[in-house]
Amino acid sequence: MADKRFFDRAGPFSISEIAERSGAEPAPGVNGNDILSDVSPLDTATADDLTFLDNTKYLDALADSRAGACIMHAKNADRAPAGMSLLFSDAPYKAYALAAQAFYPRGSGDALISPAASIDPSATSGSGTSIGPGTCIGASVEIGNDCQIAANVVIGDGVTLGDGCRVGANVSISHSIIGNRVHLYPGVRIGQDGFGFAPDPAGHVKVPQLGRVIIHDDVEIGANSCVDRGSGPDTVIGEGCWIDNLVQVAHNVQLGRGCILVAQSGVAGSSVLGDFVVLGGQVAVSGHLKIGAGAQIAGQSGVVSDVEAGAILGGTPAQPIRDWHRQSIMLAKMVKEKRTRK
Amino acid sequence: MADKRFFDRAGPFSISEIAERSGAEPAPGVNGNDILSDVSPLDTATADDLTFLDNTKYLDALADSRAGACIMHAKNADRAPAGMSLLFSDAPYKAYALAAQAFYPRGSGDALISPAASIDPSATSGSGTSIGPGTCIGASVEIGNDCQIAANVVIGDGVTLGDGCRVGANVSISHSIIGNRVHLYPGVRIGQDGFGFAPDPAGHVKVPQLGRVIIHDDVEIGANSCVDRGSGPDTVIGEGCWIDNLVQVAHNVQLGRGCILVAQSGVAGSSVLGDFVVLGGQVAVSGHLKIGAGAQIAGQSGVVSDVEAGAILGGTPAQPIRDWHRQSIMLAKMVKEKRTRK
Amino acid sequence: MADKRFFDRAGPFSISEIAERSGAEPAPGVNGNDILSDVSPLDTATADDLTFLDNTKYLDALADSRAGACIMHAKNADRAPAGMSLLFSDAPYKAYALAAQAFYPRGSGDALISPAASIDPSATSGSGTSIGPGTCIGASVEIGNDCQIAANVVIGDGVTLGDGCRVGANVSISHSIIGNRVHLYPGVRIGQDGFGFAPDPAGHVKVPQLGRVIIHDDVEIGANSCVDRGSGPDTVIGEGCWIDNLVQVAHNVQLGRGCILVAQSGVAGSSVLGDFVVLGGQVAVSGHLKIGAGAQIAGQSGVVSDVEAGAILGGTPAQPIRDWHRQSIMLAKMVKEKRTRK
Repeated sequence: MADKRFFDRAGPFSISEIAERSGAEPAPGVNGNDILSDVSPLDTATADDLTFLDNTKYLDALADSRAGACIMHAKNADRAPAGMSLLFSDAPYKAYALAAQAFYPRGSGDALISPAASIDPSATSGSGTSIGPGTCIGASVEIGNDCQIAANVVIGDGVTLGDGCRVGANVSISHSIIGNRVHLYPGVRIGQDGFGFAPDPAGHVKVPQLGRVIIHDDVEIGANSCVDRGSGPDTVIGEGCWIDNLVQVAHNVQLGRGCILVAQSGVAGSSVLGDFVVLGGQVAVSGHLKIGAGAQIAGQSGVVSDVEAGAILGGTPAQPIRDWHRQSIMLAKMVKEKRTRK
Repeated sequence: MADKRFFDRAGPFSISEIAERSGAEPAPGVNGNDILSDVSPLDTATADDLTFLDNTKYLDALADSRAGACIMHAKNADRAPAGMSLLFSDAPYKAYALAAQAFYPRGSGDALISPAASIDPSATSGSGTSIGPGTCIGASVEIGNDCQIAANVVIGDGVTLGDGCRVGANVSISHSIIGNRVHLYPGVRIGQDGFGFAPDPAGHVKVPQLGRVIIHDDVEIGANSCVDRGSGPDTVIGEGCWIDNLVQVAHNVQLGRGCILVAQSGVAGSSVLGDFVVLGGQVAVSGHLKIGAGAQIAGQSGVVSDVEAGAILGGTPAQPIRDWHRQSIMLAKMVKEKRTRK
Repeated sequence: MADKRFFDRAGPFSISEIAERSGAEPAPGVNGNDILSDVSPLDTATADDLTFLDNTKYLDALADSRAGACIMHAKNADRAPAGMSLLFSDAPYKAYALAAQAFYPRGSGDALISPAASIDPSATSGSGTSIGPGTCIGASVEIGNDCQIAANVVIGDGVTLGDGCRVGANVSISHSIIGNRVHLYPGVRIGQDGFGFAPDPAGHVKVPQLGRVIIHDDVEIGANSCVDRGSGPDTVIGEGCWIDNLVQVAHNVQLGRGCILVAQSGVAGSSVLGDFVVLGGQVAVSGHLKIGAGAQIAGQSGVVSDVEAGAILGGTPAQPIRDWHRQSIMLAKMVKEKRTRK
């Protein structure tokens, strides 16, 4: 179970309650009144725990699991040990996520505005919002209800945040309009100048960056990631995007809804990503490109031209992933043959 | 126009004033007394706005633009719509940058030393300098005139900064000598220990890092970038360098004047870059190399040996960029042929 | 010599004292009572300085050096100038590191708890520990003896740190158990949520991250690097690991003892690295992999499958480094031939 020093557990919950919250359906014969007290992975779960099976790689671990209950696809039911209460779902990981949220709800905080925060008198914040010590809030900042602003955060003049936002320690935000339920992890940098200058041998000349950052609802941005404000147009992060740690989003970039940017990836200036684009770790997208909806780019790839919707690419320069795999295999074979001939 | 919550606009300016500040020359017949009230891109500019055309890709947008005035190369004059006031320049983007700086001058700030800053009594700062709340300034620190030090910054003992510097929120600086008009974006880390140790199976042994970071005038360093101090020699950032976000500069590195390091690039220990070297995004330069003046390295490339002045390289290991392109094309063709033969 | 504004020098030391502290042995005839006052590289050392020679690339610099004393392999003795006092060691760089630590010992600090820190009354800290201004320490935090916690750090509820730790400016830590003599550089992020969610077109669903970060003794973590907490299991950093700047360590990753992760490298979720694995700069390791003890991965490589102990790999996808080099050479030759034929 989770370390009590760090996590507050709710519950216990009956299987019926879990079913309701997770959307999973108890298998025939399961007693809805049975009680579960925690969530746990297959290998460490005990009789009081709820677990899940999604990836079939873990079917053997299922067989050995001592979990009291398990969320899974119905088709895998015969692989479960006798006596385990099964809950069926077509999306077991999602159902498990919802159940785990029930056991470990986001803390509501204490709604305390720290006396050690520096808050401009013209700034406002809604009910249920907490602000940590050392945090500086600029003039005319508007913060919604039920936000948790951690310690040593810096929010510049005029920024607005919606309801239910969480802003981690040491974050800085300026020139930004931020929606509801946005979660910025520690050290995130939002709204600073984009990288805009006219190169000149006598000294590069800075171009004033006159746009903003617009972040829509339900976005997560990982630790130490950076989103620069636009140069004139805005930089836009679409609803429900998940951005990992140490990611770079340059000025004027637009991300559609639900994009996933894995750690250390970067998008150069003015590129536009459609909905649900996925960038693997350390991917680079060059500037002024259009990446179609649903495109997926393998880790470390470099995208240097527009990408069609739904394309799956790999390599630098990025190409259809099957070609990239073929190329890797062909090269390995050529090197091996060459070595053998010698 | 720029969002008034975040930007203070100066002006309006007459075309003659714009010409003087930008270095662009009004075309014959243009009325120097006409008034412009803002800057804007080609596609959103209105009759009161100044815009610019540099990249000929946007000639069609020029034809459709409603801008009152436009800075451009004289040779493109015939593509401008009738009635638009033209200003000619051989460097339109630079001229536009200077005009935009006139409309949106850097705020001079309020020269306030926050009572919520922690400043060692032996530290000094010049006239016109502001220091934000939560900022900690160590012993014997010397800060010049007209600097803007944001909130929650940490400046270690003995550091010096020149005049006109801007230090963003949550920046940390130690062991450094910093010139004039240096701009450190939020979350920048300057002067921490370099990555120096003697590897040993019984426990790697730390080598004390006894050098400093020297940053010359007019340098910009992007959000969350890191510059380690030297191990004995200094780490040096030359005049007018532009460093983007999340860039790594290791101990003992020397950058010449005007180098451009795009986001997420990194330079390993003791490498020396000549003047005006350009590293694309996610480029890696190995340690102990010499990169000649004016060399340009394409994004994601890996430089593993010395580079001649003026060379343009791509790939890992980096090679002349035409060879790298040929290689990519050759491989794509080979894979295609192989597929076709089957 | 090191800039006195930033470094306090101890000593002077006799050659006998240096020998004792460094483990190096004075050559026959060297006077153990001779006095040395500083350490310095070969090219800048003077008669009062100790230097070292490890890499034979610098044998010429040795011949020209004016250093009073030099730690080196005995086999290079005949290349030293007459009159230089030699100390012999099989690991000259390590011996020099230990000598340099004697001249520049880590400051013990003033053990001051800043009145401008925000410390929960339930938090404890040991003797000799200092806490900087603006630092926030949460409930039930336990900090050992002789720790130096810099300014504007944020330590969340329940975190424990052992003895002799150093925590740099603007660091944030949560959900973590940290050993002795751990050094976190400025801007490090430890213990935030891992990147865990069930992808869903209707909105990705967050999976509560219920694990911790466990950091063993004698670990160094570079500026702005990130270590996410586990999703249920813990994220573990083994004893004596050295992690450079801007490195990403994802949830559930386990690093063995003495691993070296060079700048901007990243390890994806649940991968396990054995003891003394080395990742070059910008290396990416995919998720759920096992990297055997002592494996070394060349810079910018992408590891996409399990790696055997002791393997040396390069390229993306990573392959034996000799094959990777052969492949690069083969391709360069093919491109050249093709060009010539035209």
